[in-house]
Amino acid sequence: MTAELGPNRYGKSAIRLVRVDRSDDGDRVRDLTVAIALEGDFAASYVDGDNSLVVATDTMKNTAYALAAEHLTGAIETYAAALGRHFLEDSQVSTVTVSIDEFAWRPIGSAPDAFTRDRTSTRTCVVASTRDGVAVDAGIADLVVMKTSKSAFSGFPRDEFTTLAETEDRLLATKVSAVWRYLDGASVDYDASFEAVSRTLLDVFAEHFSVSVQASIWIIGQAIVERHPEVAEITMTLPNLHHWLADIERFGIANDRQVYVSTTEPHGLIQATVRRS
Amino acid sequence: MTAELGPNRYGKSAIRLVRVDRSDDGDRVRDLTVAIALEGDFAASYVDGDNSLVVATDTMKNTAYALAAEHLTGAIETYAAALGRHFLEDSQVSTVTVSIDEFAWRPIGSAPDAFTRDRTSTRTCVVASTRDGVAVDAGIADLVVMKTSKSAFSGFPRDEFTTLAETEDRLLATKVSAVWRYLDGASVDYDASFEAVSRTLLDVFAEHFSVSVQASIWIIGQAIVERHPEVAEITMTLPNLHHWLADIERFGIANDRQVYVSTTEPHGLIQATVRRS
Amino acid sequence: MTAELGPNRYGKSAIRLVRVDRSDDGDRVRDLTVAIALEGDFAASYVDGDNSLVVATDTMKNTAYALAAEHLTGAIETYAAALGRHFLEDSQVSTVTVSIDEFAWRPIGSAPDAFTRDRTSTRTCVVASTRDGVAVDAGIADLVVMKTSKSAFSGFPRDEFTTLAETEDRLLATKVSAVWRYLDGASVDYDASFEAVSRTLLDVFAEHFSVSVQASIWIIGQAIVERHPEVAEITMTLPNLHHWLADIERFGIANDRQVYVSTTEPHGLIQATVRRS
Amino acid sequence: MTAELGPNRYGKSAIRLVRVDRSDDGDRVRDLTVAIALEGDFAASYVDGDNSLVVATDTMKNTAYALAAEHLTGAIETYAAALGRHFLEDSQVSTVTVSIDEFAWRPIGSAPDAFTRDRTSTRTCVVASTRDGVAVDAGIADLVVMKTSKSAFSGFPRDEFTTLAETEDRLLATKVSAVWRYLDGASVDYDASFEAVSRTLLDVFAEHFSVSVQASIWIIGQAIVERHPEVAEITMTLPNLHHWLADIERFGIANDRQVYVSTTEPHGLIQATVRRS
Repeated sequence: MTAELGPNRYGKSAIRLVRVDRSDDGDRVRDLTVAIALEGDFAASYVDGDNSLVVATDTMKNTAYALAAEHLTGAIETYAAALGRHFLEDSQVSTVTVSIDEFAWRPIGSAPDAFTRDRTSTRTCVVASTRDGVAVDAGIADLVVMKTSKSAFSGFPRDEFTTLAETEDRLLATKVSAVWRYLDGASVDYDASFEAVSRTLLDVFAEHFSVSVQASIWIIGQAIVERHPEVAEITMTLPNLHHWLADIERFGIANDRQVYVSTTEPHGLIQATVRRS
Repeated sequence: MTAELGPNRYGKSAIRLVRVDRSDDGDRVRDLTVAIALEGDFAASYVDGDNSLVVATDTMKNTAYALAAEHLTGAIETYAAALGRHFLEDSQVSTVTVSIDEFAWRPIGSAPDAFTRDRTSTRTCVVASTRDGVAVDAGIADLVVMKTSKSAFSGFPRDEFTTLAETEDRLLATKVSAVWRYLDGASVDYDASFEAVSRTLLDVFAEHFSVSVQASIWIIGQAIVERHPEVAEITMTLPNLHHWLADIERFGIANDRQVYVSTTEPHGLIQATVRRS
Repeated sequence: MTAELGPNRYGKSAIRLVRVDRSDDGDRVRDLTVAIALEGDFAASYVDGDNSLVVATDTMKNTAYALAAEHLTGAIETYAAALGRHFLEDSQVSTVTVSIDEFAWRPIGSAPDAFTRDRTSTRTCVVASTRDGVAVDAGIADLVVMKTSKSAFSGFPRDEFTTLAETEDRLLATKVSAVWRYLDGASVDYDASFEAVSRTLLDVFAEHFSVSVQASIWIIGQAIVERHPEVAEITMTLPNLHHWLADIERFGIANDRQVYVSTTEPHGLIQATVRRS
Repeated sequence: MTAELGPNRYGKSAIRLVRVDRSDDGDRVRDLTVAIALEGDFAASYVDGDNSLVVATDTMKNTAYALAAEHLTGAIETYAAALGRHFLEDSQVSTVTVSIDEFAWRPIGSAPDAFTRDRTSTRTCVVASTRDGVAVDAGIADLVVMKTSKSAFSGFPRDEFTTLAETEDRLLATKVSAVWRYLDGASVDYDASFEAVSRTLLDVFAEHFSVSVQASIWIIGQAIVERHPEVAEITMTLPNLHHWLADIERFGIANDRQVYVSTTEPHGLIQATVRRS
């Protein structure tokens, strides 16, 4: 025998769950995609084909729906932690990782019971529960933003393959994916913190002058760490969705920062963590 | 020779174009995907391999960017019609069909030059230009909506393969795709009409009691035709994105219209036209 | 009342069905996505909210699975026609349109019961059944093909917005979507014809010299109509997935038809029908 | 100052590159998507907005095309390593990670210059180059496979939320994603090893009796580690794409392991590493 089992985890993904909180003041729609993964004493299921400790992933799905009735009354992080506690009741489980994407729905006008899905961004969390406590990562994804001024890129080195012109004025567009870890995941006002961090992210994105995507990540991340003491660190992953000024001046048509070619392939991709020092 | 050429068209699709309207009061971002298709005297290009009348699709792309400078100052329909007139200058062209999807961007707070993309819905148009005039279809797509009450489905026939229970209370969710044709495509306030028709669509969706998706299409379509005299007809295509009440009562957990399983496959699909009589 | 109901249809889409034909010589996997749409006397369901004639789309789904046991023993067209006959038993139904995509699975080596999904192409059919008979469209989709030589594009007109260079040698790539109608849909060896038409399509694509995508459609379509007497007409929709010679000669590196930039946006799009004359 | 920069990397993704190797015996199409990421002394670009050491991602893209002429003559791993060496010439760079997906094209019949894209699977590699050497991960992705017999799942624990029936005969379908690390990444016959490992993976998948996806990963991974001495470890990520026997027996129709409902949401997800001990 020359092989051994290394790290492993298993679970259920893409559990699609909608909860409607009904009230005389108007309903609220919660729309989640949930994934649950277990780690622990599962080696026998791999090496010996022994399923006696394997919680069926179908059972995990059933549990997600069952616990939503009692525990999905507040933030997704609270519900994720409840799922974590549930599966830790099984002694063979050492870590439960619950990942949730929440999609926003907005009321139509003043209607109490009709909604549009707002796909401007997705709220995310990853809650890792062990018998020692929880680690809570909150995040925002799918947030596409653009700066139409106050963006430049210059001063970079030039070698034999460099053709990009320096620019003091470019259009900057990106799809934000940000994940931040709470210093103490067990005692945060998750909803309030999510709103506040998201607001800082957007505000600083709007206000700052960007000399590069790298510099933007630092400026935004620094502001988030400084303004939100509950945040231990934040990791941002930002594609640079290039927009090239359309070359219509060759047709005698002026193009003063007006008409752009929007592209997705290829794109820059910048990822960095800013953390509390 | 037993073969002959039938209907044909060709053009350029997926032209990605962003235009920034810059002003002291704040910028405006226009974000379009444009497709251009030509019909006309092109049989020789197929049957004889004669390209002498074939406007290159690369030229169509260049033209889309070139004309955006002068003509994309108002509604997408106006820009599409300008592209139509341009290509009709070529005598071999009989019909120019310009299809445009416009994606919305919203300012971040009061920032004049920073934006988020709002993916709640997509505005569409298809403008078909001939030497006799233009036919203008406006539309809205990708609009995901839900009714958490006032939706039922009962009274349908039951045969040997029917298992669906009748219900007087179900969750109704759909992704709206609606296209309406203007009676006189050349003289419409496109932006105002788009806003007004979209508003009626959402308002009636929210207010009405739905006994079926079919009935909803009729009630919404009838309201649009009656309230918006510029609309000749509207076609709605509505998937029925089923949400099933999660069966957690088998676990002894109450589920009074609260926790649902969200699904996309399979889905109902209902399409109908409502027209001015 | 100023509104009336126009054309309408409804049904179930995205019915995902796998059938395993088991035999001592090895199993066969059939993997289908089925859509069923009904037309007929359904106006009351829209205008009056009367569901008494509305076959539930859930019933359609159940029927697709139920009839697969007896009727999905041969070609998808035969199964689609059986579904058509079934729903025509309801007197309010005038047309049943069954659309099927079939995905191919290939045995792994000589294994009788293990398979890989071959996503090289998708077989399609659309069978429209009425009390007068059936119209059968067969097709192939998602077939991505490339010619590395014998492709040119020149002789096209040049105007003020034309920048494309003429070329006698370009790389031609496209994703084929082809749909052909049978002269007599009720009496075709569907499997044999599908194989034969697909073979002609690929063979002629490989052999011919392409002076344009338009000319390629004609040459391939003409061959199919001439060689396959059961085919009444064929419509091909071909995006021109541009591959541009990478401009590395500016770096002093030779690039003799070797290194290309592959693109998807924008793309040409050419559609034409070739029919029996 | 309460913030500091943590881990960071940047680069260019989604570089789409096709190379045609031309020969009298027939052409060969190489179709790659390339991503390049750099790590090193880049803190100043974040914290100080100093771009003087920031190789532009546009330059990375140009370099990918430029080096393809000389270095993409064999395996993608060799080309990736050449890109790694190139960027390590810049002293501020400490690690270059090149990730490549390669898509297969097959000749049409005996044609020397016409091809279909075979989307049955994707070959992948991730080559991480430092001044100390290279770490080479090879892999296969997007490989959808099915076992129509010899798959079971039973003996798992039952709690209050367990409803899944035990089964000694189920249909097992998954989309394989496998990544293996070479013991000595610098001296492997990459093409030969890729073919051999892929063959073992498919053969063992076909032959073995699966009592769970976990057990399948172990059996396949163990075989790969034992039969391929160049492999240090392999990580497999396997969704369990559930196929449920269609409940048509309630309609009086027999269904002896024949008609299944194919699903993708939710799905099990099992990931484990098997390594040389």
